[in-house]
Amino acid sequence: MAAFTFVCCECAARYRETEVRYVCPACAVQQQPGGVTRGVLSVEIDELPARWPAARVHDPGALTAFLPVANPVTLPPLRVGGTPLLPVPGLRRLLAMPHLWVKDDTRNPSGSTKDRASLLVVAKAVEYGCGTVATASTGNAASALAAVAAAAGVRAVVFVPASAPPAKLVQMASYGAQVVPVDGSYDDAFELSLTACERFGWYSRNTAYNPFTIEGKKTAAIEIAADLAPDGPQVVIVPTGDGVIVSGIAKGFADLVRCRLLKRAPRLIVVQPEGSPALARALRAGSPSVTPVANAASVADSLVVGTPRNAIMALDRVRASGGAGVTVRDEAILDAVAMLARTTGVFAEPAAAASLAGLLAALDEGLVTRDERVVLMVTGSGLKDVAAASRRVRIPEPVPPDLEAVECLLGETGV
Amino acid sequence: MAAFTFVCCECAARYRETEVRYVCPACAVQQQPGGVTRGVLSVEIDELPARWPAARVHDPGALTAFLPVANPVTLPPLRVGGTPLLPVPGLRRLLAMPHLWVKDDTRNPSGSTKDRASLLVVAKAVEYGCGTVATASTGNAASALAAVAAAAGVRAVVFVPASAPPAKLVQMASYGAQVVPVDGSYDDAFELSLTACERFGWYSRNTAYNPFTIEGKKTAAIEIAADLAPDGPQVVIVPTGDGVIVSGIAKGFADLVRCRLLKRAPRLIVVQPEGSPALARALRAGSPSVTPVANAASVADSLVVGTPRNAIMALDRVRASGGAGVTVRDEAILDAVAMLARTTGVFAEPAAAASLAGLLAALDEGLVTRDERVVLMVTGSGLKDVAAASRRVRIPEPVPPDLEAVECLLGETGV
Repeated sequence: MAAFTFVCCECAARYRETEVRYVCPACAVQQQPGGVTRGVLSVEIDELPARWPAARVHDPGALTAFLPVANPVTLPPLRVGGTPLLPVPGLRRLLAMPHLWVKDDTRNPSGSTKDRASLLVVAKAVEYGCGTVATASTGNAASALAAVAAAAGVRAVVFVPASAPPAKLVQMASYGAQVVPVDGSYDDAFELSLTACERFGWYSRNTAYNPFTIEGKKTAAIEIAADLAPDGPQVVIVPTGDGVIVSGIAKGFADLVRCRLLKRAPRLIVVQPEGSPALARALRAGSPSVTPVANAASVADSLVVGTPRNAIMALDRVRASGGAGVTVRDEAILDAVAMLARTTGVFAEPAAAASLAGLLAALDEGLVTRDERVVLMVTGSGLKDVAAASRRVRIPEPVPPDLEAVECLLGETGV
Repeated sequence: MAAFTFVCCECAARYRETEVRYVCPACAVQQQPGGVTRGVLSVEIDELPARWPAARVHDPGALTAFLPVANPVTLPPLRVGGTPLLPVPGLRRLLAMPHLWVKDDTRNPSGSTKDRASLLVVAKAVEYGCGTVATASTGNAASALAAVAAAAGVRAVVFVPASAPPAKLVQMASYGAQVVPVDGSYDDAFELSLTACERFGWYSRNTAYNPFTIEGKKTAAIEIAADLAPDGPQVVIVPTGDGVIVSGIAKGFADLVRCRLLKRAPRLIVVQPEGSPALARALRAGSPSVTPVANAASVADSLVVGTPRNAIMALDRVRASGGAGVTVRDEAILDAVAMLARTTGVFAEPAAAASLAGLLAALDEGLVTRDERVVLMVTGSGLKDVAAASRRVRIPEPVPPDLEAVECLLGETGV
């Protein structure tokens, strides 16, 4: 519905939709191969709604007035978003944080936040008449694209590091996507995907490079703000790889402030693994740019990027929010998977539980206080990587079907 | 909110909640060890709502007026149900069925319909002051109990066949449940769980034995009817093991007919694997009872039961609906996993995709016509058993990160 303008996050140049497809042509000339994406575009909706939609924001289609689509009919027929904001009493007690929530984005169709970006990108592909959409991905974006493309009847081609968790590979292939496992890193897959899109004329969903990936993810922020209206949260904690989810969330809150549905946007805390810390490190150092990390690695595979592609926009938006970056050890991430599941009933993949590990770090550092209204973004399902979760649980040896064996196993005595 | 009476599905005896906890004492005397559960109780709400809730039925708490809870505050703080009814245009075209929907119950918190039963059972455990809830399970019911119990701060003990898919075992253990892997079948685990509950004084969530497992699942039917109001569906296709989901769905539609929110309940089609066909076989033979299946087995692990515990009620309710039973081969189930994912973007575990395999069988047999309003119950996420899904996909060998390798892999040529 909404007409919009592209605005370059570096030079502030403005473009109509007919003038440009991916990045700012003026800034793109500075692009280095494998480097931070230059000239990432933000979508500026010409006329934002002046009030909350009459339908609940969790209803399909309720947020289309906030989205840059010419006609909502292009939105693929899959219910994306509308995920619960859980009050998590058990975790609140444990942390003495009475105003803590979990945004359970594991409940998206393919099990991750990435579905939000894919929904908008595939809607635009349908609008533009593109029959093939391609992306590079650590795994979740590929599954998300594959699911949404299947629902829309569009072809998906996905480039993933061959080391992606098997569940993610099987999931994306099951949706009928053409899977290209790349013998290399996510960064290698990203470059290959860009080249292939250019060569074969495919529409690229590559994160940040396609501006609708950022815009699509803003719906998570709009839902959070609606659920906590009128005040909204004070802090949102966001597991971060390329910096697109955190930028999308910043954009959602910014839109709401712009149209006066929210007084103040929350501080955004970026969480990265110690083995893949480029953005968090730049935030902590007050550096204007990121230093790529050679051989980035973490149990949180979805967060492993050497060069965060959306670094320029993400650094800017996190700083503007008054936020910060923290890094967490892999051991702390695995502990957080177990703590989150046991106290809330939300089973998250390592990358998603990193938000809880990041909260603990932020509390330690005094970046967050316990009485603030804090939201943890939980971005992907634990079923996507059970091998990781299995490192914190013990499945006992099978017992014969008799009561004594049960007594012995559980140390239980009769009543 | 709702006061209620227990009614025995065999002898129609009526009990107040204070008189009985699990099954009809009069009929339970006929119980055979390992046999069909005798005296399964139905919950009869004294006063059903006269109109649809003002809040959408997908909102948390909107359906409490239909549920036998003394106080909605006991409902665990997890959003269960409210799952989408998808119009699936791709599958409609493929099957020439313009009025086909998928009830995507993979979108529940732990990824299966079983969360609906666990929500109500744990709410009742809290109401009764029981600190431990136990169940036997092929896997999903255990994960569901574990998730809901974690959210509610209640202890869960789960008895599962040691052969359950690893993802399910890791998931339930991650939620902090005490897992008892049983060296034996689901039927063995069921008996052991019953004995253990009695011995240790735990509250039993065993399916059908605990009447709230049936009542909890009725919310799926109420949501479907609300989404298709005022007419509702004509046919609902239900993957079936013990016969509890199909009975719960029948109960939901029956409640709506009773309170005049729905004119006519749909026909229910029971789908079972050829290797675990006890209920479907009895329905097809017109037999009044089931013959247990020795060495039941299927790729659809969630449906594998030798003796369907809720056979008496399920046979009765499916017949009363004008429904039928079909059996499907494991190969057809695996094909259905792929067909469903590729045409709808819904990735289902084998047991859940069995509904699509069952639809194809029902069409062949003339049990369903292509112009009817048909709903497929899709009861569990494909991420629960990727090993099964992997049997219908091919992940190519990794390619080096260069364009020629991509051209070669995809047979693609440049534009």
